[in-house]
Amino acid sequence: MKSQYTLYDYLPSGNGYKVRLTAKYLNIPYRLVELDITRGATRTPEFLAKNPNGRIPLLEVQGRGFLWESHAIISFLAEGSKLMPADPWARANVWRWLCFEQYNLEPNVATPRFWVKSLKKTAAELGERLTEKLAKGYEALGVLELGLTGREFLVADRFTLADIALYAYTHVAPEGGVSLDAYPNIRAWMARVAAQPRHAPITAA
Amino acid sequence: MKSQYTLYDYLPSGNGYKVRLTAKYLNIPYRLVELDITRGATRTPEFLAKNPNGRIPLLEVQGRGFLWESHAIISFLAEGSKLMPADPWARANVWRWLCFEQYNLEPNVATPRFWVKSLKKTAAELGERLTEKLAKGYEALGVLELGLTGREFLVADRFTLADIALYAYTHVAPEGGVSLDAYPNIRAWMARVAAQPRHAPITAA
Repeated sequence: MKSQYTLYDYLPSGNGYKVRLTAKYLNIPYRLVELDITRGATRTPEFLAKNPNGRIPLLEVQGRGFLWESHAIISFLAEGSKLMPADPWARANVWRWLCFEQYNLEPNVATPRFWVKSLKKTAAELGERLTEKLAKGYEALGVLELGLTGREFLVADRFTLADIALYAYTHVAPEGGVSLDAYPNIRAWMARVAAQPRHAPITAA
Repeated sequence: MKSQYTLYDYLPSGNGYKVRLTAKYLNIPYRLVELDITRGATRTPEFLAKNPNGRIPLLEVQGRGFLWESHAIISFLAEGSKLMPADPWARANVWRWLCFEQYNLEPNVATPRFWVKSLKKTAAELGERLTEKLAKGYEALGVLELGLTGREFLVADRFTLADIALYAYTHVAPEGGVSLDAYPNIRAWMARVAAQPRHAPITAA
């Protein structure tokens, strides 16, 4: 497919999934370059010249350059679309959830999954580091659960980037040993997200 | 000063400082409520009802409600101002730096400072946890140093929210034992930021 966009990505990545889902909802075509982050593919001199932070997802925009950080990428793609509200207060609340995801949820819910699923570590090997991550992960999920009280979606009563970004790692939390049993609001919301038209599973290219 | 804004904050906080600096540059008045986070002031039932994530800074906007997450707050305050570029590519790059700050720099450069300065822990007490944070902190500073190569400011050749957000914890990194000696671009950029009109030190209310 001819496109102005090239996405450097690793399909099991929830951060990459945010970009792929956003592009899918907005019907934005892109060329996909898959990189295996477990084999150091994002730490080569060639990749570091594109993103000095050595991480996927990375978006190459023809005529502009390289953009990294999943939330910078999805907000760039979604600007002016129904996925990003125009109202300043609603926008600020989308960003509130995006920032919360990167600071509180992702490091504590996604990292255990990466250790267990991608690096094949056992709970015994990980020990206290895992216990600590899980405790903070459950704390973050508690905040998300509360934020969904009486709401269909996180912001502005409709599906936005906030739902895409928070769904990405939350729905695969159990792959890292994080149970979602105690979070009925989260489970009902995940079903609503998965029922959106154009939805795709995390590893879909 | 009468204002539609109330800021709940802890003056040594770099995250709070981002909001105070943004308000200062934009000449936005606010009422300040100081909370001592080292004494649990953000974990009381009363505060958790305002921000379930139990953190400052928290902005109360008359007639709207409560907004948390420092970058959601500063982008809300700066919308339409010279601190947030209107060009979509430049905006995306401001967000790239803001996201990088929250994920890579803040957890590894600000946390050692909080442990050492606010909680009065010693390096011996902190042990390997500190060593690990510092290594990741230097990695993040390396990315920032590279990002400043040949540039006066981080985005769009002028002072933006990206400079405010990245400056907040970087300039006080030495308080947590992080040396900035190896980063000449960062040191020159910090001097340019501090020389901006309306600049104020971190603990200024």
